[in-house]
Amino acid sequence: MSDIREHCGLFGVYGCDDAAERVYYGLYSLQHRGEESAGIASTDGKDIICYKGMGLVSDALKPQTLKSLKNPVAIGHVRYSTIGSSNIGNAQPLVVDYYKGKVAVAHNGQLTNAKRLREEFEANGSIFHTTSDTEVIVHLMAKPLHMMQKNLSLLLQQLRGSFSLLFLTPNEMVGVRDPHGFRPLALGKLNAGYVLASETCAMDQVGAEYIRDVAPGEAVYIDKDGIRSEYYCPQNQIKPAFCIFELVYFARPDSRIYGESVHIFRKKLGAKLAEESRVDADVVISVPEGGNSAAIGYSHASGIPLDRGFIRNHYVGRTFILPEQDRRHRIVELKLNALKETVEGKRVIVIDDSIVRGTTSKSRFGLLRKAGAKEIHVKISCPPHRYPCYYGIDFQKKGELIAANSSLEEIRRFLHIESLSYLSVDGMMSCTTQPRQSFCNACFTSNYPTPVDEETKNPCEKK
Amino acid sequence: MSDIREHCGLFGVYGCDDAAERVYYGLYSLQHRGEESAGIASTDGKDIICYKGMGLVSDALKPQTLKSLKNPVAIGHVRYSTIGSSNIGNAQPLVVDYYKGKVAVAHNGQLTNAKRLREEFEANGSIFHTTSDTEVIVHLMAKPLHMMQKNLSLLLQQLRGSFSLLFLTPNEMVGVRDPHGFRPLALGKLNAGYVLASETCAMDQVGAEYIRDVAPGEAVYIDKDGIRSEYYCPQNQIKPAFCIFELVYFARPDSRIYGESVHIFRKKLGAKLAEESRVDADVVISVPEGGNSAAIGYSHASGIPLDRGFIRNHYVGRTFILPEQDRRHRIVELKLNALKETVEGKRVIVIDDSIVRGTTSKSRFGLLRKAGAKEIHVKISCPPHRYPCYYGIDFQKKGELIAANSSLEEIRRFLHIESLSYLSVDGMMSCTTQPRQSFCNACFTSNYPTPVDEETKNPCEKK
Amino acid sequence: MSDIREHCGLFGVYGCDDAAERVYYGLYSLQHRGEESAGIASTDGKDIICYKGMGLVSDALKPQTLKSLKNPVAIGHVRYSTIGSSNIGNAQPLVVDYYKGKVAVAHNGQLTNAKRLREEFEANGSIFHTTSDTEVIVHLMAKPLHMMQKNLSLLLQQLRGSFSLLFLTPNEMVGVRDPHGFRPLALGKLNAGYVLASETCAMDQVGAEYIRDVAPGEAVYIDKDGIRSEYYCPQNQIKPAFCIFELVYFARPDSRIYGESVHIFRKKLGAKLAEESRVDADVVISVPEGGNSAAIGYSHASGIPLDRGFIRNHYVGRTFILPEQDRRHRIVELKLNALKETVEGKRVIVIDDSIVRGTTSKSRFGLLRKAGAKEIHVKISCPPHRYPCYYGIDFQKKGELIAANSSLEEIRRFLHIESLSYLSVDGMMSCTTQPRQSFCNACFTSNYPTPVDEETKNPCEKK
Amino acid sequence: MSDIREHCGLFGVYGCDDAAERVYYGLYSLQHRGEESAGIASTDGKDIICYKGMGLVSDALKPQTLKSLKNPVAIGHVRYSTIGSSNIGNAQPLVVDYYKGKVAVAHNGQLTNAKRLREEFEANGSIFHTTSDTEVIVHLMAKPLHMMQKNLSLLLQQLRGSFSLLFLTPNEMVGVRDPHGFRPLALGKLNAGYVLASETCAMDQVGAEYIRDVAPGEAVYIDKDGIRSEYYCPQNQIKPAFCIFELVYFARPDSRIYGESVHIFRKKLGAKLAEESRVDADVVISVPEGGNSAAIGYSHASGIPLDRGFIRNHYVGRTFILPEQDRRHRIVELKLNALKETVEGKRVIVIDDSIVRGTTSKSRFGLLRKAGAKEIHVKISCPPHRYPCYYGIDFQKKGELIAANSSLEEIRRFLHIESLSYLSVDGMMSCTTQPRQSFCNACFTSNYPTPVDEETKNPCEKK
Repeated sequence: MSDIREHCGLFGVYGCDDAAERVYYGLYSLQHRGEESAGIASTDGKDIICYKGMGLVSDALKPQTLKSLKNPVAIGHVRYSTIGSSNIGNAQPLVVDYYKGKVAVAHNGQLTNAKRLREEFEANGSIFHTTSDTEVIVHLMAKPLHMMQKNLSLLLQQLRGSFSLLFLTPNEMVGVRDPHGFRPLALGKLNAGYVLASETCAMDQVGAEYIRDVAPGEAVYIDKDGIRSEYYCPQNQIKPAFCIFELVYFARPDSRIYGESVHIFRKKLGAKLAEESRVDADVVISVPEGGNSAAIGYSHASGIPLDRGFIRNHYVGRTFILPEQDRRHRIVELKLNALKETVEGKRVIVIDDSIVRGTTSKSRFGLLRKAGAKEIHVKISCPPHRYPCYYGIDFQKKGELIAANSSLEEIRRFLHIESLSYLSVDGMMSCTTQPRQSFCNACFTSNYPTPVDEETKNPCEKK
Repeated sequence: MSDIREHCGLFGVYGCDDAAERVYYGLYSLQHRGEESAGIASTDGKDIICYKGMGLVSDALKPQTLKSLKNPVAIGHVRYSTIGSSNIGNAQPLVVDYYKGKVAVAHNGQLTNAKRLREEFEANGSIFHTTSDTEVIVHLMAKPLHMMQKNLSLLLQQLRGSFSLLFLTPNEMVGVRDPHGFRPLALGKLNAGYVLASETCAMDQVGAEYIRDVAPGEAVYIDKDGIRSEYYCPQNQIKPAFCIFELVYFARPDSRIYGESVHIFRKKLGAKLAEESRVDADVVISVPEGGNSAAIGYSHASGIPLDRGFIRNHYVGRTFILPEQDRRHRIVELKLNALKETVEGKRVIVIDDSIVRGTTSKSRFGLLRKAGAKEIHVKISCPPHRYPCYYGIDFQKKGELIAANSSLEEIRRFLHIESLSYLSVDGMMSCTTQPRQSFCNACFTSNYPTPVDEETKNPCEKK
Repeated sequence: MSDIREHCGLFGVYGCDDAAERVYYGLYSLQHRGEESAGIASTDGKDIICYKGMGLVSDALKPQTLKSLKNPVAIGHVRYSTIGSSNIGNAQPLVVDYYKGKVAVAHNGQLTNAKRLREEFEANGSIFHTTSDTEVIVHLMAKPLHMMQKNLSLLLQQLRGSFSLLFLTPNEMVGVRDPHGFRPLALGKLNAGYVLASETCAMDQVGAEYIRDVAPGEAVYIDKDGIRSEYYCPQNQIKPAFCIFELVYFARPDSRIYGESVHIFRKKLGAKLAEESRVDADVVISVPEGGNSAAIGYSHASGIPLDRGFIRNHYVGRTFILPEQDRRHRIVELKLNALKETVEGKRVIVIDDSIVRGTTSKSRFGLLRKAGAKEIHVKISCPPHRYPCYYGIDFQKKGELIAANSSLEEIRRFLHIESLSYLSVDGMMSCTTQPRQSFCNACFTSNYPTPVDEETKNPCEKK
Repeated sequence: MSDIREHCGLFGVYGCDDAAERVYYGLYSLQHRGEESAGIASTDGKDIICYKGMGLVSDALKPQTLKSLKNPVAIGHVRYSTIGSSNIGNAQPLVVDYYKGKVAVAHNGQLTNAKRLREEFEANGSIFHTTSDTEVIVHLMAKPLHMMQKNLSLLLQQLRGSFSLLFLTPNEMVGVRDPHGFRPLALGKLNAGYVLASETCAMDQVGAEYIRDVAPGEAVYIDKDGIRSEYYCPQNQIKPAFCIFELVYFARPDSRIYGESVHIFRKKLGAKLAEESRVDADVVISVPEGGNSAAIGYSHASGIPLDRGFIRNHYVGRTFILPEQDRRHRIVELKLNALKETVEGKRVIVIDDSIVRGTTSKSRFGLLRKAGAKEIHVKISCPPHRYPCYYGIDFQKKGELIAANSSLEEIRRFLHIESLSYLSVDGMMSCTTQPRQSFCNACFTSNYPTPVDEETKNPCEKK
């Protein structure tokens, strides 16, 4: 499950004495969206102070420090990145000085025109400190032309690709979503103030109440006079293309994304799976945690009883460092043990949310076989993902995606299982409560919602 | 769940090139039995080398170091302790020099005559380095009278209370269980060698196969000539009194304890609970992880559908340090979030495995209420535990056990829930496959299987 | 001695397989010039890789990492800073991307027009990531106008104040000294390559040979075609004003600064002190390490025997953290102990190189009194420093300089000593081998070598 | 200098509110006597609490913790050990429980009959937790026969070899010195209380006043009734054999040892050296720190001026870890730099306190040659040490002592110097103010003050 990576998670609080501390707890709930670095920038109305660090929220930041800040406004960020650029310099929020003073920016998504913009800036004498495409945004912001504007419209119209953004200045907090709304961003109420969050589970964490999503193409400005909304681009450029993979895989089951309950959506996936690919079996189990919600849906729909087939060792965390590379399967075995009593001599249906490279899945199903499973029928609660994402999700390289290179039968044989089914694209799309054309499912279908030119295929944040 | 503490977990491997490394992985599976210190002693047939450290296995020990040992025999230990004596000096295995050379001992349980033995030794000129009652055992071992024996019978007959023990000398590994068999200890096969483990889940971990439990009153000697068994006390002193709490609460669901599958036993508890205290409801949920197995049993038996009511944040671990004491409820909220979609407007049955002080439970059920649950019916898969354990389990002080001091109705009101039921003692005991008189259930019934004199009530390991 | 702080130390190596590793050892020798952060940037001819960290060289950098680099060119930096801006973001070398690629800059000194330049840049749309005035230099460098130049002249002519600089690009290493030569920078030879160093002691460390100082107003370019020198400003702007305080106080005694041996200069200071303020006494001692060289000169000139009066505890380092602020005198006592056998019943002359706030000195002389000294005559090997430095030395705030606020007699009484003498300005200047007008001694005389406008008095690096 | 190791340092305080904290600072002054572990045991009159750790005092112990203790009595210990037994288990003070309660023991020295005693104990059923010979002492203490005694005489008479000891019980602090007085131990006064210290420099540190040495064969008991002295063995067994090496090499120059000022003794060594082996030269320098005192004596006696020939880099500490073993000479070069201005073209006399393996000395003298020294005449302020010490000093193995295997001329050639002289045994002994037969100089002469049987030659603490 950890083989596919979201790029980031955002959380902002406006109008709370302990804003920075609440952002800390909010980021804890968004940790699954970024484990490599965490940062919080907050303001007292004059200066902006920023703490960042590598690793998990609990390693990178100290709640004591944040607690002592007493700043009423704060934004935070958790981040993944490719190996090369995993350094503290690229951690966010990015805080810089410019003519108007200080500004902090946090970004979830991926700009497809960052490389071109960067080259233009450099040709005109600008310097860059980081390899992150977010730095382009602050350069744009500091342009005299843009500075003269009261709002960010001119700046935001320069950006292409996917971007949910939080801006923090000593006076206001701004939340922005790109015209396609690729990545989620929700608005909530917290006492007399407001919160902005990638997922609603972070709102629950701090006691905030979900109001609505920030709309595609919308910028929400929050300051001492309250909240103000603005569409920064013409309506005809607004074309929703919500990432379906957030619902299928990334978001926490206790979040609402695009106004949709993740848990219920996944239960529907399971039910649809039962409808599409029924098989006679004695028991339904899930691969925890990814398959848990869909397995409930499958069991309810099929009438085949649900039981626990794997027991997870909760002490096996990220900090586990193995003595040898070639023993990576040790982690699989340490993390999950098969429950012989559930599977021995049984025909077992296993529900999971993805197969990436296939090696981890193979080890896991092998545990079931060793525990005596008579038949193993694997059901994946989405279609095979075969295509790269240019909007902020870091799949494995194409060569490593087993579904990109092998037929269903080949994968089944590789996994040594009796049967394997994926959910159909139509089946998956039928589970949403919204028009299916509002979604981007390009990783399954290659129907990219924006033109895919060369620049898009090789975006700038590589280094 | 972390409020009740087992004292220890044991794991030993005989006859494997990488014995110490395997013990390391085995201890990982037994981590729930002791989070305060971990240690491994191993031998190359001449010397004994021991590594110990404070904290979790992953903090206390380095797999690289153990891997490089190449010693064919090793025993390991994980430990809990009361605050006072939580220091590296009390970590186990305890390794000492005596007349015959070096010996390492690892102990799970609690001696009820340690205090008296210690006083006798001190009166005769012995010195003690630790406050652990295990040190008494090595003093007994070093007595000239005992040293002359070929086996450990004479020594073991001096011990009272609960003790599962592993001994390691350069020549052999010994596994011992007290005449009541209070604590578990199982024997397994690993290629040409043997393993001894508190729980069978550790055998799965290292690829060993369960053979049988070490019997109450039995000592198993393993050396180059193979395995040899011996009852070290007269048959009439052997009176099984297996700790029922291991099955109900402590052991991992993927373990077999006393030859019983923990997961199946707990499913039966759930089914029995459905039988004893049925209530009309819309959905059954569990408090993860403790209530998971019983909830399946309850749902199957009652026909009320099972769903996920809490989502666990897997990033909240032991290392989370809170800025203020009075915010301990933060941990509860960080760790679990209620799933509004499951409980909103619903009559909810919640299955858990215990209520200790009640405060954590209250916070959790409060989350359900906040998420919109219409009715909350809590079912606990065991009777209320009201009495102290003198055989190795560290309940809260009596004053802190809510069930020891309050009526069912008082607890229900404290928790702000619609109904509360505990499983009956008879109901619980009916779920085992063995004669119910083979078990100790004194923490629920005060039927202590051994005389409870003053010395037993105030055993020596206090410091 | 640690109360007055140099801002930085520089070291660069061109043309050695192990350039980065040698810079590491060179920085070790320059550690006294900056204890707060250390960094090394090196190039393989294509990319620039930079390692930085907080604290001492040994904490901030790993020799193993540097060793593995095998890059033939590297520059390094050690840094002090005021409390406020002590963060990794301000650590140097500063490495940025601009139109021509990557460049690394390391700076020793203080720009007096940084604030103005920064404001101009911001007004034109530039953003700043750090509070260091060094960032202004890289912005200047990236200006299209400057980029078109073959050399750095145009850029360097924009800078005011003190600056010794090292630049590193994938193709060359450049050393620059400001037209006054406030801060030292020396050129040396290392096998077929070159080194640039703030002090020659660092050259000894890596086996390099001193050639000459980089001249005021000179830029030295080193690349594959060898070394090339250039004066980047008109000769009439070149006015040497070497910092005399480097010789008196900062530099290591085994360095040559401005072509002068520091040790010999300090011995002359001692001799001159004996000439200016003779007193009858039994023994001469020094406060280690600062007074050691001058004490030898004093003893030789006066004929009064030198002995050890203080013994230093070499285990008391920077890492010593005191339980309470008000016990700072503990450090003094832990660090130095008076040698009773030397001072008891004696008239003692004590040589030191400075009195800053006076409290540390008072504690030390108190130790001598407690050890039985009959008379204590303190001789300081420079005049009282009473004026701020605008060229890169961080004296205490004026209110804290005891000499700025008290008469000689007041200081003497505060220190509880029999007599106190400072060296005269003329005495001090007479010890150099160069024209005395080549030096800046403004901290003693307030004769600032450049106009001191308001901007100079409140330079920008404050944050 | 760090190639020869003292085994330990002791410090105890009786009758001060902040005894534990003072012991902490006292140990700081004795750090040179043991860098591998440090520990402090203190009592509130009821219990004994002990903190120990590996490494330097500043790493091993926290002043805050000690400060909070408020215990009026405490003893402390710093320790060296051979590599094999460098573990926390062997750190001291050793604290055990026995019949009379708790006792803590700290030991400086080496028992020559520890092995035999240990074997006897083990044969009688005792167990040993450590490999340290100090554990034998607590076993003796716990013997019923010894426990019945009011004092420690019977126990102390069992011990052979060298031992300065501190005992701490809830009621008293005891200081003991062996009948030969091999290792120092001094008694001092601190306000209304007392201190015991290996060296008087530690008394200066905490503001205590030296009273007298504990005498050979004496035990000093300090409790609420004051101080009581007792000779625990017949007078005819008391034969002073003070370790001369403490004066020559180990002790800090600001200590008094055996009533002798270390600094003055060493100045006399230098003067005697000038008398014994005069040579024409231009300058006298010392190898810091070891040669500093003797160099002053040499210069005064010879009339040849003293100057600084080496500059020490105070940032090079124990924590410096080198990337490669074969670059150990790097440490020498990082630590000391030769001062060209002092030695260039000169005939240089270099004073040092020892040559152990010779390799470090060779590197150092090589620096002088490289700096231009015309002639290098090395004078060592003691005779060549050629014989092992059985009384608590850890010389290199005999094969590694250059003087044990090479002639003077061979060493001189190995060091590439013009001349080499050692002080004569008679010369060295003539510098003490006490009868020379009161000293042990066996490491120079092989005149061991006790019979040297096989057991003595291979004492037990080897592990």
